Amino acid sequence: MKKYDVVIIGGGPAGIITGVTGKKQNPGKSFLMINEDDKGLVPCGIPYVFHDLKDISQNAMGPKPFVDAGGELLIDAVRKIDIKNKTLSTERGIDFQFDKLVIATGSVPAIPTFIKGYDLEGVEYILKKYKYIEDLKNKTDIAENIVVIGGGFIGVEIAEQLAKYPDKKVTLVEMEKYCLYKTFSTDVAARADGVIRDTKINLFTNRKVTQIVGENNHVKAVLLDDGKEIKADIVITSIGYKPNTGLARESGLELDDNKAIIVDRYMRTKLKDIFAVGDCSSAIGFITGRSNSVMLASTATAEARVLGYNLFTIDLLRNFQGILAVFSTEINNIAFASAGAIEKTARDAGISFIVGKFEDVDRHPGTLPDASKLMIKLIVSPKNGAIIGGEICGGKSTGELINTIALAIQKRVTVYELISFQIGTHPLLTTAPTKYVLIKAAEMVIANIKKTY
Amino acid sequence: MKKYDVVIIGGGPAGIITGVTGKKQNPGKSFLMINEDDKGLVPCGIPYVFHDLKDISQNAMGPKPFVDAGGELLIDAVRKIDIKNKTLSTERGIDFQFDKLVIATGSVPAIPTFIKGYDLEGVEYILKKYKYIEDLKNKTDIAENIVVIGGGFIGVEIAEQLAKYPDKKVTLVEMEKYCLYKTFSTDVAARADGVIRDTKINLFTNRKVTQIVGENNHVKAVLLDDGKEIKADIVITSIGYKPNTGLARESGLELDDNKAIIVDRYMRTKLKDIFAVGDCSSAIGFITGRSNSVMLASTATAEARVLGYNLFTIDLLRNFQGILAVFSTEINNIAFASAGAIEKTARDAGISFIVGKFEDVDRHPGTLPDASKLMIKLIVSPKNGAIIGGEICGGKSTGELINTIALAIQKRVTVYELISFQIGTHPLLTTAPTKYVLIKAAEMVIANIKKTY
Repeated sequence: MKKYDVVIIGGGPAGIITGVTGKKQNPGKSFLMINEDDKGLVPCGIPYVFHDLKDISQNAMGPKPFVDAGGELLIDAVRKIDIKNKTLSTERGIDFQFDKLVIATGSVPAIPTFIKGYDLEGVEYILKKYKYIEDLKNKTDIAENIVVIGGGFIGVEIAEQLAKYPDKKVTLVEMEKYCLYKTFSTDVAARADGVIRDTKINLFTNRKVTQIVGENNHVKAVLLDDGKEIKADIVITSIGYKPNTGLARESGLELDDNKAIIVDRYMRTKLKDIFAVGDCSSAIGFITGRSNSVMLASTATAEARVLGYNLFTIDLLRNFQGILAVFSTEINNIAFASAGAIEKTARDAGISFIVGKFEDVDRHPGTLPDASKLMIKLIVSPKNGAIIGGEICGGKSTGELINTIALAIQKRVTVYELISFQIGTHPLLTTAPTKYVLIKAAEMVIANIKKTY
Repeated sequence: MKKYDVVIIGGGPAGIITGVTGKKQNPGKSFLMINEDDKGLVPCGIPYVFHDLKDISQNAMGPKPFVDAGGELLIDAVRKIDIKNKTLSTERGIDFQFDKLVIATGSVPAIPTFIKGYDLEGVEYILKKYKYIEDLKNKTDIAENIVVIGGGFIGVEIAEQLAKYPDKKVTLVEMEKYCLYKTFSTDVAARADGVIRDTKINLFTNRKVTQIVGENNHVKAVLLDDGKEIKADIVITSIGYKPNTGLARESGLELDDNKAIIVDRYMRTKLKDIFAVGDCSSAIGFITGRSNSVMLASTATAEARVLGYNLFTIDLLRNFQGILAVFSTEINNIAFASAGAIEKTARDAGISFIVGKFEDVDRHPGTLPDASKLMIKLIVSPKNGAIIGGEICGGKSTGELINTIALAIQKRVTVYELISFQIGTHPLLTTAPTKYVLIKAAEMVIANIKKTY
């Protein structure tokens, strides 16, 4: 039986980054990655396969960096793990021995079994598999009426992409008052909904799908709770993901309430030499201090780097501090981003907070031809002024501006520090130095604290 | 004689932000701003008056925010300050008494008196005055042959703008090996020069102007040190700025070697109740720990916020920690930015450092239509891994990405922390989570430290 120092199950972002980082730190150790597919997809790039990318192959992501670093790769599925004897066996009947095992099996789409007709032909999911998405793309190409159920990031992005085809009728159904309600506070989510409604998408919020109606076992319509029937050649459900942890559970690993494998801050499970990382592993919220089920490739890679450096010994005394949850997206050329706790997250977690908001344009003077509106909101702990969250709506630079906020939250920067934060500004690239949005929002918070306390 | 609690001399970014912040913090105090011109200009927007902005009025910046906050404004020039008696008198013969005086007189262009012919008609400077720039714009509009002397930011940006007119011949002369050599390390500066050479600009580096040649007292050509003569209808010199501190010196305030008014970290001069802020005040380098003459509106506003909050009492225990120097620009649609110490700054200041570099694209997958190349370089203290500087070359988001680095430097973030920094990524907005440039550059630094130490 062949033995490896490290076996990694799964070849998504968490598995690849654990493998690359671990192998680079430990060139003398043998690493094997077992992955079910020979090619994968950039997870967050999947929606763009449906329009903006010319071809699905443009969104391919594989374990090449791991193999380049000296890791071995096996395309196979793990069937059984014997943790006591440190062995595992695969579908193809190969047995391996391992010293360390990393479970990076990711997540799978939640299936809306509570909706009648969920199992009809033509009801699809965003399964993060190359072949599946390739097929789905071919199906959407010939569909005229498409209904997307669930207005989270994936649902909104896929609907936005499909609605770019002039001849398709795209409907998006969200049961909450606004799409993206988990990630943005009410005013920002309302703004995002406005942007969605500016596209060709037919958006229904505050509406539940009560039934998916079929004919000859194939979907033909979707019924809403107000009785409305929407024609559908294809239905894409995107109601969330759940940890892919069946194998882990069968192997005796302990799961949390979200069915994620329980790990400590170094990604160690309760069993020696067994690690779990990424979507399949448990985590707490950086701000909320309690269980958090956010799944993001960027979070998974942050965990994977912590694990990769610390596989054999805690060499990098920097454990994973909990999920911050930094989101960004772009809808119809307007970017939305959030980091850390938004108002309702803070409220639900019993955290006192105060808010400051500022709006300007992202160039200066704002008369420059490509200037976009820019809105920033900071959520702050009123006692010490520490920034605990932020939201942005604006142009392309939103994607990097949110990361300045993300760093500020992670380093516990206060608004009192932020107001004299030295920044770089340029007419063609940012807001003006006299009213740099982040600083102005911090000033608003300070003024609000002064007023309130 | 009318008395004000606070008199501010100067209405540039430093004066305005000190006034707005101070007045908002102290609504009961009376504030007067004395400024020579009724309207000013966004300083960093000046180059764009020459092409991208339709009209100079689009780049106007005035003391409106200060007046809106309740401050009073006088268009006049201060002729004399009597510090002992706390009075001042103006050109128009008005006398005022003050409790606190803020000197925010900014900077003026250095005049190349060492070049023969510097005083010919048609030899111009980038004086930050509305009327002057308006006239200069009219002159460049009718000029065919334009020579810009000095390849710093202003020189490069003005040359880039003027070269956008198909019928103008624009020459840029820089005496160092590369333009922007003060702000970027050799490889990045070389890249910027490449971008400049891709435009219509006729660039000469490593060349000095030995004489500006005239005819009937008007410029007609420029002579280089290799004997080359370049035809010139107009010459724009941009060889730097110096603190505008004649009045301060005459009033008895102490200046440093750069002729800047000596202040402490709360912007207090050595004389009680007299403050100086912005380009006219002294500062030390945040990283170098010694005198620094960088002049930036963003730095000036950071100082002004510290001063505005602390005018009457040190209410915000956050003094100005020294100039970080965060620069950004865009040349021919490619952005360049730097923050903190670059390699030569560190070398000159005797600071040991190690470098990490990473290149990718700013979208993921990189096949997305608007993807730009993105290069990042981190300069790091090898002992504790603290980031002391960074450079970026890339797309528009460079302008915000440099600010994440700027915050990291200011908060003494180490590369060991940065590798598990939680970030937000999105296909249409940033690099991929698996190879986010800032994290990859940090990993490169760690690998280099391991190799070297």
